[in-house]
Amino acid sequence: MQSVLDYLKKNRRQSIDQLCQYVRFASVSAQTEHKGDMVACAEWLVAHCREIGLETRLCKTARHPIVLARTPRIKGARKKHFVVYGHYDVQPPEPFELWHSPPFEPRIHKNALYARGASDNKGQNLAHLKAVEAYLKTGVELPCDITFVIEGEEEVGSGSLETFLKERASELRCEGVVISDTGMPAAGLPALTYALRGIASYELIVRGPSRDLHSGIFGGSVDNPAMALAQILAQLRDKDGRVTIPGFYDDVEEMSAFERAQFKRLPASEREYRKFLGVPRLFGEKGYSFLEQRSARPTLEINGLTSGYQGEGSKTIVPAWARAKITTRLVPTQDPAKIARAFRAYLKKICPPTVRLEIKSGHGAVPYIMSPRDVKAQAGVRALESAFGVAPVLIREGGSIPIVNQFKQQLRADSLLLGLALPDDNAHSPNEKFDLGCFEKGQVMSAHLWQELGKI
Amino acid sequence: MQSVLDYLKKNRRQSIDQLCQYVRFASVSAQTEHKGDMVACAEWLVAHCREIGLETRLCKTARHPIVLARTPRIKGARKKHFVVYGHYDVQPPEPFELWHSPPFEPRIHKNALYARGASDNKGQNLAHLKAVEAYLKTGVELPCDITFVIEGEEEVGSGSLETFLKERASELRCEGVVISDTGMPAAGLPALTYALRGIASYELIVRGPSRDLHSGIFGGSVDNPAMALAQILAQLRDKDGRVTIPGFYDDVEEMSAFERAQFKRLPASEREYRKFLGVPRLFGEKGYSFLEQRSARPTLEINGLTSGYQGEGSKTIVPAWARAKITTRLVPTQDPAKIARAFRAYLKKICPPTVRLEIKSGHGAVPYIMSPRDVKAQAGVRALESAFGVAPVLIREGGSIPIVNQFKQQLRADSLLLGLALPDDNAHSPNEKFDLGCFEKGQVMSAHLWQELGKI
Repeated sequence: MQSVLDYLKKNRRQSIDQLCQYVRFASVSAQTEHKGDMVACAEWLVAHCREIGLETRLCKTARHPIVLARTPRIKGARKKHFVVYGHYDVQPPEPFELWHSPPFEPRIHKNALYARGASDNKGQNLAHLKAVEAYLKTGVELPCDITFVIEGEEEVGSGSLETFLKERASELRCEGVVISDTGMPAAGLPALTYALRGIASYELIVRGPSRDLHSGIFGGSVDNPAMALAQILAQLRDKDGRVTIPGFYDDVEEMSAFERAQFKRLPASEREYRKFLGVPRLFGEKGYSFLEQRSARPTLEINGLTSGYQGEGSKTIVPAWARAKITTRLVPTQDPAKIARAFRAYLKKICPPTVRLEIKSGHGAVPYIMSPRDVKAQAGVRALESAFGVAPVLIREGGSIPIVNQFKQQLRADSLLLGLALPDDNAHSPNEKFDLGCFEKGQVMSAHLWQELGKI
Repeated sequence: MQSVLDYLKKNRRQSIDQLCQYVRFASVSAQTEHKGDMVACAEWLVAHCREIGLETRLCKTARHPIVLARTPRIKGARKKHFVVYGHYDVQPPEPFELWHSPPFEPRIHKNALYARGASDNKGQNLAHLKAVEAYLKTGVELPCDITFVIEGEEEVGSGSLETFLKERASELRCEGVVISDTGMPAAGLPALTYALRGIASYELIVRGPSRDLHSGIFGGSVDNPAMALAQILAQLRDKDGRVTIPGFYDDVEEMSAFERAQFKRLPASEREYRKFLGVPRLFGEKGYSFLEQRSARPTLEINGLTSGYQGEGSKTIVPAWARAKITTRLVPTQDPAKIARAFRAYLKKICPPTVRLEIKSGHGAVPYIMSPRDVKAQAGVRALESAFGVAPVLIREGGSIPIVNQFKQQLRADSLLLGLALPDDNAHSPNEKFDLGCFEKGQVMSAHLWQELGKI
């Protein structure tokens, strides 16, 4: 085992170089123009996995290919099997002008690597590949069989993964899934995440006149779709952010006293948080701390607004249409399908008869929760402690990892969420970064994890 | 006089060709990238005015140049002097994809010319140039002295015109201003417009966090600027379109019985109007017909909305900011400055403390009204009747021509608004057109107008 850790130390520089190569691919799954970059990125990953010594295949899907890479199986040896999940696709980099360096040109500054995808999820996932590489290159026997599943559709709802898992259910049957795609509450404070919020996404399009109209000639005699949309949106949340869709909170489970106590263990300064966000005042549902609001309570957010003229100066029109992109974040035991029905019914009720409303539903995921007392979770906790030298905290996270549910459903496997991202990593934002200390400790944690999981 | 009319008839084809040349210039005053097109268009106009026989100058301003062209003065002759106003700048052509042919490539279809600016205002203004050309080329004596003022900032608030008029007040001293930049209530039904709405424009920017945030990680604990904006906008109008800014209606003059009777003379089918707009149901302030709502009543319109991610697919963020472009249309005797103060005070009151609100004020214009019994107005009515063979109606229009107020203020002159646009000309919309019948009759009307105005 010491030679595994020595290998990681010795190859520190090279691992960082490889991460730099990896983030250079503009693997934006949402944007058709990056289809070529997606393929190139997947092919780089395949070549890299083969170099490490993994049996690797690039598996076609209806959209973006999935990389499947497994440790060579030793004949006759009966080891526990774990799947390591990651994704090579990234969020759109826009708005470009807010990046201090180009999003796909890695830049190292203060021991952190800046690039889109550095933290979410290329860096975190590569840490596991590096740990397995250390075992394979040093000849130290891996206590577990490991299969990497690295997909290219996480940022657009993982649409191809379900079929992929279904078709390979027997090959992928496992004791559990290991995922590093979540966060640590603070630098130096590792965490195991036992719950995630679900998601349901929508696009609302309000249509009025058949074309943009001169607001002087027609204004006052025709409804304004941008105003109708604003009036609809304004009725979706109250002034404290509580969602006003009837029935929205029906299936929300209140946190247990144990859980609220866990939240209290976390470092949390409202003043610092406010400063970190750069907002004049904090905001959120009454009766909950900001840590609870953003992870254990549901929310409804507008992600984008589009209507009429957006260029320089003014254009005096009544726009023909207005659009809002919306996501709701859900907690146990809210069901995205049930929430979608309630949302549609409410929208239908509040939409004025002077416009037409189109509602598109996007990707959805049910919220996830597992027991923090599970033996695999405890193995994860020990591996984190070995790498970071600190007792990890048990946390809920506000993000959604829809695939956690798919693993549960298709493989009946729980997921160990061992996040390596720091709170200021700017995932989904301009100037995304990944701390190189977290990258190193993540590799060490992964090396220990296979020892711990091999023992259970 | 007959030879003037014959000249117009004979040169019909050539006039259309010249209008085609004129609309080919992408003279979009609002967009910096079209600065070169603005200059090229003004220079074409100068050359054209000189060809006609006008004494022409291109006058520099702080932004876009103004074309000044006058009929040669006959020494010793004391004629009445009139200014003909027009503008060579056009609205932005966006959204391009809704045009059936490119906005700056003229296309003739069913006796109408399709192009941005065809109706607003190049075609309408060129009709007057053609009439004056007919006098000058045939040698028939013009009963009036005429000065054309054709500016390039009408669509961005006519910022340079005031200084221009001030500096040339004595040269431009006149009996009245003639403007064809308004509309006819129906094909074949000419109109003299005696009132216009004013305008006040704004941009609201709501700022929240210092950057776009991951909506999973942070959503629920921070206000969403797009939602805050929607909730602010929703409080600006009630469900019938009545503006809810306190004091907004304080200075609105109710129409006289005479005026409401004029409105009743106009052809108006709610069903046809609804179909023409393409809306599921009409909308507007209770107690007024749609013709009154859109011209004699004030309104507040959202012209554009921008926030967060607007591309393909979804991006799960809490956007850092959200913006709305807004215009209010005002009627006598509302004052844009007073309305702006009331608007700002109200916005300040309703903006939540969890976001920062920035309010920018754009161009403004007071509403305009003149007596329809004025002798010059009556001359205009007779000229219209001579050209169209139908008794004109006296109307109010909903659009704003800020310069009408500037002529009143700087030259103490009333404006004769002799609109040639049809209701379906799509001014400010994709597929703008100008009816070639209106172009022809407009030239004839202008030829008669100088006779009528010469007699008063």
